[in-house]
Amino acid sequence: MGHAWLSLLTDYGLEDGFVAACHGVVAALSPQTRVIDITHLVPPGDIRRGSAVLAQTVPHLPPAVHVAVVDPGVGTARRSVAIATDTSVLVGPDNGLLPPAADALGGVRAAYVLTNEALWRRPVSATFHGRDIYCPVAAHLATGVPFDAVGRTIDEASLVRLASPQSRVLGPVIEAEVLTVDRFGNVQLAGGPHPQWSIGQRLAVAAGVRHQPATFVATFAAVPSGELAVFVDSAGLLALAVNRGRAADRLELAPGATVSVRPDATKAGSG
Amino acid sequence: MGHAWLSLLTDYGLEDGFVAACHGVVAALSPQTRVIDITHLVPPGDIRRGSAVLAQTVPHLPPAVHVAVVDPGVGTARRSVAIATDTSVLVGPDNGLLPPAADALGGVRAAYVLTNEALWRRPVSATFHGRDIYCPVAAHLATGVPFDAVGRTIDEASLVRLASPQSRVLGPVIEAEVLTVDRFGNVQLAGGPHPQWSIGQRLAVAAGVRHQPATFVATFAAVPSGELAVFVDSAGLLALAVNRGRAADRLELAPGATVSVRPDATKAGSG
Amino acid sequence: MGHAWLSLLTDYGLEDGFVAACHGVVAALSPQTRVIDITHLVPPGDIRRGSAVLAQTVPHLPPAVHVAVVDPGVGTARRSVAIATDTSVLVGPDNGLLPPAADALGGVRAAYVLTNEALWRRPVSATFHGRDIYCPVAAHLATGVPFDAVGRTIDEASLVRLASPQSRVLGPVIEAEVLTVDRFGNVQLAGGPHPQWSIGQRLAVAAGVRHQPATFVATFAAVPSGELAVFVDSAGLLALAVNRGRAADRLELAPGATVSVRPDATKAGSG
Repeated sequence: MGHAWLSLLTDYGLEDGFVAACHGVVAALSPQTRVIDITHLVPPGDIRRGSAVLAQTVPHLPPAVHVAVVDPGVGTARRSVAIATDTSVLVGPDNGLLPPAADALGGVRAAYVLTNEALWRRPVSATFHGRDIYCPVAAHLATGVPFDAVGRTIDEASLVRLASPQSRVLGPVIEAEVLTVDRFGNVQLAGGPHPQWSIGQRLAVAAGVRHQPATFVATFAAVPSGELAVFVDSAGLLALAVNRGRAADRLELAPGATVSVRPDATKAGSG
Repeated sequence: MGHAWLSLLTDYGLEDGFVAACHGVVAALSPQTRVIDITHLVPPGDIRRGSAVLAQTVPHLPPAVHVAVVDPGVGTARRSVAIATDTSVLVGPDNGLLPPAADALGGVRAAYVLTNEALWRRPVSATFHGRDIYCPVAAHLATGVPFDAVGRTIDEASLVRLASPQSRVLGPVIEAEVLTVDRFGNVQLAGGPHPQWSIGQRLAVAAGVRHQPATFVATFAAVPSGELAVFVDSAGLLALAVNRGRAADRLELAPGATVSVRPDATKAGSG
Repeated sequence: MGHAWLSLLTDYGLEDGFVAACHGVVAALSPQTRVIDITHLVPPGDIRRGSAVLAQTVPHLPPAVHVAVVDPGVGTARRSVAIATDTSVLVGPDNGLLPPAADALGGVRAAYVLTNEALWRRPVSATFHGRDIYCPVAAHLATGVPFDAVGRTIDEASLVRLASPQSRVLGPVIEAEVLTVDRFGNVQLAGGPHPQWSIGQRLAVAAGVRHQPATFVATFAAVPSGELAVFVDSAGLLALAVNRGRAADRLELAPGATVSVRPDATKAGSG
């Protein structure tokens, strides 16, 4: 059946020729395939960041072969895998990068370990499996090569999964880990909003020793310039933004930090 | 009739999945459309910068649906519009970003406010109209959906326009605002050269308290390394460059600053 | 015959509209041509860097018209050329940028100086030959315009070539210049490994006053985190990496510096 589209997410950066080599390998093996670059600016080796961006982006792409390579263990014993979902397939290292994207696409339908070297570029560099293994296998899958040609099926439960960032409701409080910080300095938390909050409600945000008043709004542009907004972002997750500023800088937050958000008691009577 | 090409200009950056989500929405709705990325590195919310880059680039693209999103007011009452020109259509927020590009394409032929939610992705995020409104509407237009399907026509005079950067001739002097600074540190001014200058003429550039001798040349590479050149750039505008250096740094200039350029009186006798 | 693919490598950066203008020119002249961006982040005017990235990338692309523009002398007397190889053609300034890529593609088969202005975009900006000369000529070549239409043939020996970075074997020692530093801080040297080294061998790396123990391995991930690895990289060249770190920072190395690598005498008895 194959796929018309192939996506690429890596930590290769944009200043070298690595990404183009991947495009070239796909172009040579499957000229009709069209490539969408998700990002190549995942910080080097940052599997958690790559995993979050991948999982939040693939639902908005057409059915595709999604190649993701953030692979600090390249060339070692870590496995290379293909994960089939209902509509798409994910190809990359078995280091935790792919499963959240599979979940976002409806769950793992089957998983395969890449062992059929006949589909690889030869010789295989020990440090560039994106060019020599993942993109060639993905291009073959795009052309309609069947899954079981890439290697043997493996137990889904054997796939490496990273601990998921947590969010929980503690009475009136949301306590959540920071999942990502985006280009705008917006801070995305690992869960959704409190079920009892209403638009316009005053909140208090605590991050380490820093406390800030905030407002729960539909869009960050609804608070005055320079003020802190709490909103549901375009991925459906709770997020913090400073209108025309950077919430991550204001609150000194980075992925993995913990934030608590609660109703602002000092404003409770005025709501 | 539709368009074969679609361009994208945003301030979304390249490190997140926002741009890819836009590509994905277009790919799903109009698979045959081909996308040219103008830039995604407009500084966050910098409408003036986005507007200048857009206006200077679209004349070099084939007829297309041009989607531009620099939208600090996303989710608020600002309108979303489509502007038809003779050959192309511009889609984005009504905040001043689009009209200079429409002018560069020969002027506004008709303008529409985007109100037909049947063409949007649902649900619409309050913070990501690029993905949920502008790209879906643009993809539909590319496939040949008629303009009047996107919403009702509006008076061209009602479109938000930013004040244009100014340039004027004061006797022998050009006094002009800085329009853009490019990757090379070249300083682009808001107007053209003085009609009486000739190639090779010695000039004096004043920027705040800084004064620098310069030469009016055809290309910055015509002055010795490290010297200041005044030239007509590839957009037809007057520009300042330091050969193998950065004029913006040398003169401490940023967009919006004012520069004056005049014949160098101390060299007048030797010309 | 023409080519289905066209690649672009420049120092234009990604924040302006320069790259999109190049894409637009190609799209208008040859809509069916598909473009692969190699990189646009060559440091401004850095011909050596552009040359190395180009030469290492084109072997992985399909047969194509490769346009490369790192051109600090734009608008001056330097020639513009097209270089034919067995499978591809390179188009750009005659300043040393293209010949290593031609060599990597099997060598120069013929060379032409671009003089046929009928193939150029008019008027030609004196500072943007990528848009006005190189991309139009390349698009015409992609559509099948014959080589001799671009201009007259020139002697291959007249092409500007930069001095090649050197590597040599001095007894048990490799002494080599740094060719590139990549996004990961990996240091690529100008030659291959010593023929007598074996995987797992302990080495000593000297760079200026800095000395570091290292291990010769198949992949940087084979040494403990933070340790220095010497390996053959994905371009077949000797390279230095710090596992999960940056070798270029550790050793304070930049392109053009000299490194020596030798067996670690203090470990010689234990190997």
